[in-house]
Amino acid sequence: MSFQYLKPNRNARFKDRYTTKVDETLTPYEERKTGDIGVIGLPFSKTSISLSGASEAPGTIRKALGSYSTYSGEKDEDYENMKLLDFGDVPVHPTDTGETLKRMQTSVKEMLETEACQKYVMLGGDHGVSFPSISAFKEKFGRIGVIQWDAHHDLRNIEDGGRTNGTPFRSLIEEGVLWGEDLCQIGIRDFSNAKTYADYAKKHNIHTYTMADVEQKGIQFITDQVIQKLENKCDTIYLSVDMDAVDQAFAPGCPAIGPGGLTARELLGSVAMASQHPLVKGMDIVEVDPTKDFRDMTSRLAAHVMMRCMYT
Amino acid sequence: MSFQYLKPNRNARFKDRYTTKVDETLTPYEERKTGDIGVIGLPFSKTSISLSGASEAPGTIRKALGSYSTYSGEKDEDYENMKLLDFGDVPVHPTDTGETLKRMQTSVKEMLETEACQKYVMLGGDHGVSFPSISAFKEKFGRIGVIQWDAHHDLRNIEDGGRTNGTPFRSLIEEGVLWGEDLCQIGIRDFSNAKTYADYAKKHNIHTYTMADVEQKGIQFITDQVIQKLENKCDTIYLSVDMDAVDQAFAPGCPAIGPGGLTARELLGSVAMASQHPLVKGMDIVEVDPTKDFRDMTSRLAAHVMMRCMYT
Amino acid sequence: MSFQYLKPNRNARFKDRYTTKVDETLTPYEERKTGDIGVIGLPFSKTSISLSGASEAPGTIRKALGSYSTYSGEKDEDYENMKLLDFGDVPVHPTDTGETLKRMQTSVKEMLETEACQKYVMLGGDHGVSFPSISAFKEKFGRIGVIQWDAHHDLRNIEDGGRTNGTPFRSLIEEGVLWGEDLCQIGIRDFSNAKTYADYAKKHNIHTYTMADVEQKGIQFITDQVIQKLENKCDTIYLSVDMDAVDQAFAPGCPAIGPGGLTARELLGSVAMASQHPLVKGMDIVEVDPTKDFRDMTSRLAAHVMMRCMYT
Amino acid sequence: MSFQYLKPNRNARFKDRYTTKVDETLTPYEERKTGDIGVIGLPFSKTSISLSGASEAPGTIRKALGSYSTYSGEKDEDYENMKLLDFGDVPVHPTDTGETLKRMQTSVKEMLETEACQKYVMLGGDHGVSFPSISAFKEKFGRIGVIQWDAHHDLRNIEDGGRTNGTPFRSLIEEGVLWGEDLCQIGIRDFSNAKTYADYAKKHNIHTYTMADVEQKGIQFITDQVIQKLENKCDTIYLSVDMDAVDQAFAPGCPAIGPGGLTARELLGSVAMASQHPLVKGMDIVEVDPTKDFRDMTSRLAAHVMMRCMYT
Amino acid sequence: MSFQYLKPNRNARFKDRYTTKVDETLTPYEERKTGDIGVIGLPFSKTSISLSGASEAPGTIRKALGSYSTYSGEKDEDYENMKLLDFGDVPVHPTDTGETLKRMQTSVKEMLETEACQKYVMLGGDHGVSFPSISAFKEKFGRIGVIQWDAHHDLRNIEDGGRTNGTPFRSLIEEGVLWGEDLCQIGIRDFSNAKTYADYAKKHNIHTYTMADVEQKGIQFITDQVIQKLENKCDTIYLSVDMDAVDQAFAPGCPAIGPGGLTARELLGSVAMASQHPLVKGMDIVEVDPTKDFRDMTSRLAAHVMMRCMYT
Amino acid sequence: MSFQYLKPNRNARFKDRYTTKVDETLTPYEERKTGDIGVIGLPFSKTSISLSGASEAPGTIRKALGSYSTYSGEKDEDYENMKLLDFGDVPVHPTDTGETLKRMQTSVKEMLETEACQKYVMLGGDHGVSFPSISAFKEKFGRIGVIQWDAHHDLRNIEDGGRTNGTPFRSLIEEGVLWGEDLCQIGIRDFSNAKTYADYAKKHNIHTYTMADVEQKGIQFITDQVIQKLENKCDTIYLSVDMDAVDQAFAPGCPAIGPGGLTARELLGSVAMASQHPLVKGMDIVEVDPTKDFRDMTSRLAAHVMMRCMYT
Ligand SMILES: [Ca+2]
Ligand SMILES: [Ca+2]
Ligand SMILES: [Ca+2]
Ligand SMILES: [Ca+2]
Ligand SMILES: [Ca+2]
Ligand SMILES: [Ca+2]
Ligand SMILES: [Ca+2]
Ligand SMILES: [Ca+2]
Ligand SMILES: [Ca+2]
Ligand SMILES: [Ca+2]
Ligand SMILES: [Ca+2]
Ligand SMILES: [Ca+2]
Repeated sequence: MSFQYLKPNRNARFKDRYTTKVDETLTPYEERKTGDIGVIGLPFSKTSISLSGASEAPGTIRKALGSYSTYSGEKDEDYENMKLLDFGDVPVHPTDTGETLKRMQTSVKEMLETEACQKYVMLGGDHGVSFPSISAFKEKFGRIGVIQWDAHHDLRNIEDGGRTNGTPFRSLIEEGVLWGEDLCQIGIRDFSNAKTYADYAKKHNIHTYTMADVEQKGIQFITDQVIQKLENKCDTIYLSVDMDAVDQAFAPGCPAIGPGGLTARELLGSVAMASQHPLVKGMDIVEVDPTKDFRDMTSRLAAHVMMRCMYT
Repeated sequence: MSFQYLKPNRNARFKDRYTTKVDETLTPYEERKTGDIGVIGLPFSKTSISLSGASEAPGTIRKALGSYSTYSGEKDEDYENMKLLDFGDVPVHPTDTGETLKRMQTSVKEMLETEACQKYVMLGGDHGVSFPSISAFKEKFGRIGVIQWDAHHDLRNIEDGGRTNGTPFRSLIEEGVLWGEDLCQIGIRDFSNAKTYADYAKKHNIHTYTMADVEQKGIQFITDQVIQKLENKCDTIYLSVDMDAVDQAFAPGCPAIGPGGLTARELLGSVAMASQHPLVKGMDIVEVDPTKDFRDMTSRLAAHVMMRCMYT
Repeated sequence: MSFQYLKPNRNARFKDRYTTKVDETLTPYEERKTGDIGVIGLPFSKTSISLSGASEAPGTIRKALGSYSTYSGEKDEDYENMKLLDFGDVPVHPTDTGETLKRMQTSVKEMLETEACQKYVMLGGDHGVSFPSISAFKEKFGRIGVIQWDAHHDLRNIEDGGRTNGTPFRSLIEEGVLWGEDLCQIGIRDFSNAKTYADYAKKHNIHTYTMADVEQKGIQFITDQVIQKLENKCDTIYLSVDMDAVDQAFAPGCPAIGPGGLTARELLGSVAMASQHPLVKGMDIVEVDPTKDFRDMTSRLAAHVMMRCMYT
Repeated sequence: MSFQYLKPNRNARFKDRYTTKVDETLTPYEERKTGDIGVIGLPFSKTSISLSGASEAPGTIRKALGSYSTYSGEKDEDYENMKLLDFGDVPVHPTDTGETLKRMQTSVKEMLETEACQKYVMLGGDHGVSFPSISAFKEKFGRIGVIQWDAHHDLRNIEDGGRTNGTPFRSLIEEGVLWGEDLCQIGIRDFSNAKTYADYAKKHNIHTYTMADVEQKGIQFITDQVIQKLENKCDTIYLSVDMDAVDQAFAPGCPAIGPGGLTARELLGSVAMASQHPLVKGMDIVEVDPTKDFRDMTSRLAAHVMMRCMYT
Repeated sequence: MSFQYLKPNRNARFKDRYTTKVDETLTPYEERKTGDIGVIGLPFSKTSISLSGASEAPGTIRKALGSYSTYSGEKDEDYENMKLLDFGDVPVHPTDTGETLKRMQTSVKEMLETEACQKYVMLGGDHGVSFPSISAFKEKFGRIGVIQWDAHHDLRNIEDGGRTNGTPFRSLIEEGVLWGEDLCQIGIRDFSNAKTYADYAKKHNIHTYTMADVEQKGIQFITDQVIQKLENKCDTIYLSVDMDAVDQAFAPGCPAIGPGGLTARELLGSVAMASQHPLVKGMDIVEVDPTKDFRDMTSRLAAHVMMRCMYT
Repeated sequence: MSFQYLKPNRNARFKDRYTTKVDETLTPYEERKTGDIGVIGLPFSKTSISLSGASEAPGTIRKALGSYSTYSGEKDEDYENMKLLDFGDVPVHPTDTGETLKRMQTSVKEMLETEACQKYVMLGGDHGVSFPSISAFKEKFGRIGVIQWDAHHDLRNIEDGGRTNGTPFRSLIEEGVLWGEDLCQIGIRDFSNAKTYADYAKKHNIHTYTMADVEQKGIQFITDQVIQKLENKCDTIYLSVDMDAVDQAFAPGCPAIGPGGLTARELLGSVAMASQHPLVKGMDIVEVDPTKDFRDMTSRLAAHVMMRCMYT
């Protein structure tokens, strides 16, 4: 016998026949399946300097996709046929950091090796996950350019605490994965970094844009500029979105919140513009801590960042 | 004997003799009483697609009026003598949706028939209340133009779930109450609607302004434009303010929150400008869910929307 | 190629090889599959008199099962091989109450008709779901005895608001599904009911045990007594657990909380004792509102109620 | 014209024709009106040692009365005809403590002078309100016996901070309003008082019962004992219920919460027993801080304390 | 013996050797010690008209300094050698308002008399603390100019409630401490003041800038203008930052929140610009209520206000 | 010059001259200083299986000591002269678990080697800290008996995740630090453990008492029994209090909450009884997660556990 009404718990919500929610286009990856966008979870935040629940974000961001639809009114384009493949999450080792970093790099690498999709979204976790993720992209795609939205340089020394969430770009540069001149940082905020690391950025020719730059030049202008800096010399462009680049009013769920950051509109506009470039193959979204958030606002913003990146 | 100090619980708060709080000017309607603004509560949100406590909003918005004063510094005008008449709330039937819709339409109609006021404010409730409310206005005032601030078109089909909060303007159009060309939608947001309904809007000549329009043209310009579209052909103008037109940072208490919406200042400026037009006879404020809000921020914004509408 | 580490999002949590979490034993029902316990979600609470988010409970209770293991130390018995079949959730009609009630009764009936399991757990929803659920049990199993843990009689008249969550047992009695003498109510609380309904209970020979009875006679004694009252005359026994029978300190997430109720230990002991009886074929758990809860405490208690009922 | 449905905002809630909510029996006092129970609000907590929002409690406790009905199942008695007269609240002076204390004493006195009721309930406010309240009772009724449920002696010296909420009973004794031997304290908790004040209690022959006494002798026995101590020598008995006598799990909204206190059932049973005595003419409920509470649990408990006291 | 690892509780947090947190530069004042910035806490908010926990702010703002570093990337300047001296907090009298006002004025005066620093930051408390604080500055430095960021005039009459947090500037003017023409108010909001007080402002030649002024002229222009108004005629300039000048989205922890205020960026830019002027010797930050805040967002904004003022 | 009123921020709170708060008796350890009780913080919870903020507990528990006084009314004994020495906190390495475990064991050892106190309290952190702590006690004091209050055995295998918070007693047994027969577990809860680990407990002659044992035999009887089991064969007794032994209603801030546990009174009575034994030299309190707590209720309970242990 079959049932007249019953549906699996997750699917029993109201369905309007003409509306496709983004999460309805996300299906588990299976061997040889291809799609448009690959999604992977990197639920690791034990390496955060301050207490972080960013490990919960891959779940909440996926869930937030269920609140929005595949149709862009601005472009009058429906992306309901764009296929999102969910490669699942990397299981975290409870006590061995090195093991978890290895698992993440291997898993992103394995995902890329499937060549199943055109673009990939990595859902952190804290910013420490960018080290294994970008390393895997480098192995696969060659010289890599990175656009990083962040209040912080993330160029801390490694001696004082190992590979914490304050160190990914230092690690990438010192391991030779990324060249300083191929890294662009947007949204660097006052009183949120140390002089040593700002000096390190300069010495390595990292392109940094502070909030004062954003106020004076405009986020569109800056975004355009960083794309131009990277497009000719890099084989691929990777976007790294630390949500704390955004003002605490718009992203209250980040561990290191503060005032004076980007508005949600500024971030979304900037990510959308960058994502149109054909070299963009990957994006990570990090530092969303759902345990500190209000009504999943920061996960919702992250979901919109995803949509702006995917639907170009 | 009389008491030296005792006052009813609600009036025992501190009173500065020179300050009039808005709620002090709100008194219950009684037969043959006249005033300037009529206020009615439509505390119904059982027809919401997602779980909604918008039914609590008429109470919290009225309470928020107690935090603000009748004096506009911008205009150097004190509205302490403007009389607000409270027509009370429509009692909701716990299980019969149709009955509740009928009660709401009848009650708004009865309120309008008193001809006690120049302008009326309907406090929802979810957006479903606009269907009976606008229907009643139509009956009383003739051809009706509507300015709707909303992230969503609210033009869903009715087959899939009846008259939910996603359907009011579809219902109004299909029932012949409202013509598509008399409807202006401001703040329509990306990834928040289905293509089918955007197409429906076009087909029915609904005037829609997206957030990209707001960013490019400015909210003032758009507001001015919609007023011009309506003022010549309609007998009256009705404002319908769905608070989720506003960014989640400024209106965290709506059921369907998301990033990238209007700022509070943009909404207030737009409502103020529209409300100055003499044809504006009614406004509803909907989709404020106090059970999800933080410190009644969304009800407070709704109270300011009221003040901008009333004090012109 | 296959992946070394990647797992579906829900399964990426830490796994101790010797520990079986209860949710690991819950698998979706498929045709002709049999098991020990059938689980179904009845996510409906629009008929609640006060605003209720009990519709969210089937999801949170299932999730809470993931925090507990299949092993009972008290009995030194591991239930890891007991199979829980998940029949999914009944989709709710957004605006048509009657339709939803019909869907629920049909779906419970269809589940019972599979004869796949020995015992069934219905996850509400508000207490209104017991009307269709018990009706379906009656159709399938014949004369039905009900043990209801509740602060309230739930014998309200239907004229004043239709089949709300205050009416299920009145409805069942008046529809001839349940006889008053086959209904036992435990935990009835002072100042939480109307005299009319207490009189109705008496007139229909309903067995009621108040909190004073619990304090004086002990919950074990009472539970034993109600079992004796039902076991000889009924074909089956159905347990209906309204979580608001429990004191607000132990079940803070019910819509109608109050002090002076059962402790968590009292409820768990009572349910465990009753569940051992071979006539017990079904149990519903209702009035858990996760949107009002603290740290899912009430859903956790509900999960323990389930375990006490299933693992006998 | 009259309206078919519209009701004042506060009355638009669902009404079951057979159920009387306690707040429906509470009406504003008017000259020469008589009733059974007088209720007055003393919304003052600026004198609290730690930050306190107890000034909000008179409103939330009254509101909590709307969640419960007038019918006692335990006694099979409906109190719907018992009339509660609301004398309103005493307005607090924002900066002058002495003035506020005077207003409270005067107002309680004026209420008692109306001789409108048999019994009076004073809703605090912090425990400091007992000083003016009991003083007024003394003036009206003569020698006064007090039963105080409290974790603390409230016998602090006045030199170190004036008449704070830690001093009311010291003040009453030193002003000659109350004799030590006429004061009974139940629920005094370990590590919550200073030796000096315990010694003061002994020296003034105050009857104190600690939580160890409650565990060993039982709350019923103790309650019976204190009644016996007071009934022969006093002209009237006054109950003073500091909600922090209750364990933090059952009364999380008190400023000075802690573990190891009374259960809700113990407090309710004790208050009910004491209130049956014909000498009991007044009760205050203090130290409920709604701004720190969870779901108004502590106000709900306070409402039940009121009902146990009123409905004897 | 000495310990290899152990550190005092507050210092056991992670330390990056190259990063100096602002709180690391804050040390207790000792006799004859000198520094750059003096910090004092005025933890008093019992005089607030509405319930206020602003008394907790001196602690939370100091703690927020621990989240930010001494390095300004915008100026490429590290302020790690700038010495902040903590003069401690003024103990509040629990019941005697006048005594507390006296203690505050004396303590600020004593701090200024040490001549230990160039600039001083006073951490409120409610806005009532500006009366004793500015009075002390006047005594020490002569004619004083004040820039006040505030939604409100704070010019209420004193008869109706004494020196509440609505009265400081009225009190200062009437006591002859401050001349109206030396007071500039930025951010005055609609429907947040009474006409009487706006008239008082005009009559006393107070310079007021409303939110409409901010929208039209820009915050930078206005800030520049007020500095020009004060710099020639005053001996010193005092900044008084009432955080409720900021929109509720950016400063949700103020007692009197509302929509339509300054953004965080506008406030920070304005304070930074004003603070550069050499006449600025003192700043108070008031009306931050940590008990109502979300994730100390408002204290974090206050910390940034401090940094913008100190690091010029 | 000296100040008339100013006090360091932490000491500016109200002081009653006759009351000594427990935190006033806690002073930093300095070389050769002796006292009665040594206190050390082990703020480590990165090894928790589920996300844990127990690392914050040493701070919040110390702070909670400020809410209670040194006087026990039950014993009529003031402990104001008992000296508590604060040895500070062990700094955690952000990414190297092994290093942190080593630091903790070394630091506890160094503390014990000072021989400054009679008894020591270790404030966790998650239960993983008991492994280094008990190891240090063993080195110093010889054969060690452990009384563990816990819902869980904490005897998990180490292969599946290393030394997590589920493994401390397994680790201690396998490292030969502790013998199974010297370990007593009280409060073991149903459906909270795996059969394998219950079997391990039996095989190693661990004494386990479940919640059913507590209900049937009483907590006093059990406590007495475990003391008798340990006092003759062990050189010292160590108490290990996992707060999740307590029901979620009384200890809502533990990571692994659930219903059906000990009441606060049961735990306090049991710890008090055990602590009187002269062999008890150490106690740890673990699994308090202040980031999940409500009003620091669980830290407050932990503070009372400390007082019951210290003040014997
Ligand atoms: Ca980062
Ligand atoms: Ca960052
Ligand atoms: Ca809408
Ligand atoms: Ca909408
Ligand atoms: Ca029920
Ligand atoms: Ca019930
Ligand atoms: Ca007291
Ligand atoms: Ca007390
Ligand atoms: Ca102010
Ligand atoms: Ca203000
Ligand atoms: Ca444990
Ligand atoms: Ca445990």
